Amino acid sequence: MLDAPAFTAFPLDRAEALRRDADAVASLAARPDARVAALWRLKPLVGDQDGALTPAYFPRSRLDPASLQSKVVVEVFLGLDAAGAPVFAVALDPALEPPPDFAALVMGGESTPDVRFVELREAAATMHAGEASILATARALFAWHEAHGFCPKCGAPSVSTLGGWKRVCSVEGTEHFPRVDPVVIMLITRDEQALLGRGVTWPEGRFSCLAGFVEPGETAEDAARREAQEETGILLGEVGFLMSQPWPFPSQLMLGLHAQALSEAIIVDPHELAEARWASRAEVEAMLAGKHPSLRGPPPFAVAYHLLRWWVSRPSE
Amino acid sequence: MLDAPAFTAFPLDRAEALRRDADAVASLAARPDARVAALWRLKPLVGDQDGALTPAYFPRSRLDPASLQSKVVVEVFLGLDAAGAPVFAVALDPALEPPPDFAALVMGGESTPDVRFVELREAAATMHAGEASILATARALFAWHEAHGFCPKCGAPSVSTLGGWKRVCSVEGTEHFPRVDPVVIMLITRDEQALLGRGVTWPEGRFSCLAGFVEPGETAEDAARREAQEETGILLGEVGFLMSQPWPFPSQLMLGLHAQALSEAIIVDPHELAEARWASRAEVEAMLAGKHPSLRGPPPFAVAYHLLRWWVSRPSE
Repeated sequence: MLDAPAFTAFPLDRAEALRRDADAVASLAARPDARVAALWRLKPLVGDQDGALTPAYFPRSRLDPASLQSKVVVEVFLGLDAAGAPVFAVALDPALEPPPDFAALVMGGESTPDVRFVELREAAATMHAGEASILATARALFAWHEAHGFCPKCGAPSVSTLGGWKRVCSVEGTEHFPRVDPVVIMLITRDEQALLGRGVTWPEGRFSCLAGFVEPGETAEDAARREAQEETGILLGEVGFLMSQPWPFPSQLMLGLHAQALSEAIIVDPHELAEARWASRAEVEAMLAGKHPSLRGPPPFAVAYHLLRWWVSRPSE
Repeated sequence: MLDAPAFTAFPLDRAEALRRDADAVASLAARPDARVAALWRLKPLVGDQDGALTPAYFPRSRLDPASLQSKVVVEVFLGLDAAGAPVFAVALDPALEPPPDFAALVMGGESTPDVRFVELREAAATMHAGEASILATARALFAWHEAHGFCPKCGAPSVSTLGGWKRVCSVEGTEHFPRVDPVVIMLITRDEQALLGRGVTWPEGRFSCLAGFVEPGETAEDAARREAQEETGILLGEVGFLMSQPWPFPSQLMLGLHAQALSEAIIVDPHELAEARWASRAEVEAMLAGKHPSLRGPPPFAVAYHLLRWWVSRPSE
């Protein structure tokens, strides 16, 4: 069980001032203590360590410049670790097939059969929280680069700069920054019950908190009210913030809220939810512990798990 | 003085389910009670009413289809008002010069000399909160459309759909949704003092709370910590949320936070701030009331004003 949602423990100094200086980034990359993580089709390269998955880092200085040029589509500078060592990540060309042998590919011959590319969702369940947060940041940036090779203003190709934290239009010089989409996710309670929903594509019995994107011109609090009403017909009263979580699928900022319901009758929008229901504290507690006969809750890496756990651990209202 | 930050009082039902149906949107537009606001170069068309500015709405049904085709670059469906009447907004071609006479242009001859296009920032200072929120939503959407005429994934032209809430790539069908960038803005306090900063381009004496964009892979709480340290060298302890505000310049979600400072010595980053200083409750109170001899605070439409006012109105810690 995690003490906090996944991806909330980014341990690096982002060293934003260094990104502005291309020479400084190049110098960092050349340092003997610089290391690099690799992702292919947004899947990080990982190995096993004491029964858990861990990122497979390589010395940045050993990357072959020619392979880097031909096999890597973008590189990002993620920051400095506690010892001051620079951390980079590279996105391998998604056209490479089968999953490339990273070390053999970019360091000339040294094969590393004990590492593999896995979905971050799968890796995050057991990975050290700080390492998962580093890979999450790389994944979010690479997903953005992959979907933003062209300037949305004029259609010309854009190029990565600022250590991978900006793209610039190759024709007009327009600047584009990585996208982060705010999403509200709501612990909705009424008396001693919490509202749970099941998404239209989720398996039977699997429930979580309601959630939705914040729209232009909308407060997070109003987005929570709108989504609750749209999806379940439930009216919300006071809405307060509890915690946030970056969610790299592809790049959301989850805003964890607690809201009081003003109504009880549920009218499900079948476009959004398969079903919704109220659950007692005892039911939620059993669900989170994996001991409820029919309800399965969100996994500990999701912020919804922590919103619900926060609620069951509080004294009754 | 506003009771809440500007743009937080959107009064319409966004009727998101109706957007999905192009025929439904067309039917709404044809209704006799449908009205339309106009923006040109992101400035809303407004008139004067009892000494305040108010949006200049026109009956949507009276718009000339040919003018709509040739003079309007995009139209958005904003929602239904309390009486169920549909509200639309159109963005006039920014190439039109001088500022177009909207009614004469799209309704054939009826000139409206008593209305004009003004910056929303200026209008929001006196406008009814609900109306300002409607125009803010239109402005944020139009700024996004203006900067996203092309698919960022392949560079082909994209087209507006879903009542203006989505763009679709004309070649590959890739979907793109309006962008909202989360920004943290922090009331930072220590003992009985609050931290104020002056941006590098701001006039002498003008201060506000520190703020900055949330990056991929970052919690809002960590973004606050990072920005405070980067800009002023101040270390933050506990960070909690107070309120959010949509900010349509061009489309941010301001996350208003309260943070406890763990350190006091200020080291200003000259790239970010001209100066920073601690201010007592009495100073902040005088500043917000416009009565401080040298400090000028944020205006009442900014969330920073409300964060600071919340703090001065609380009992001492």
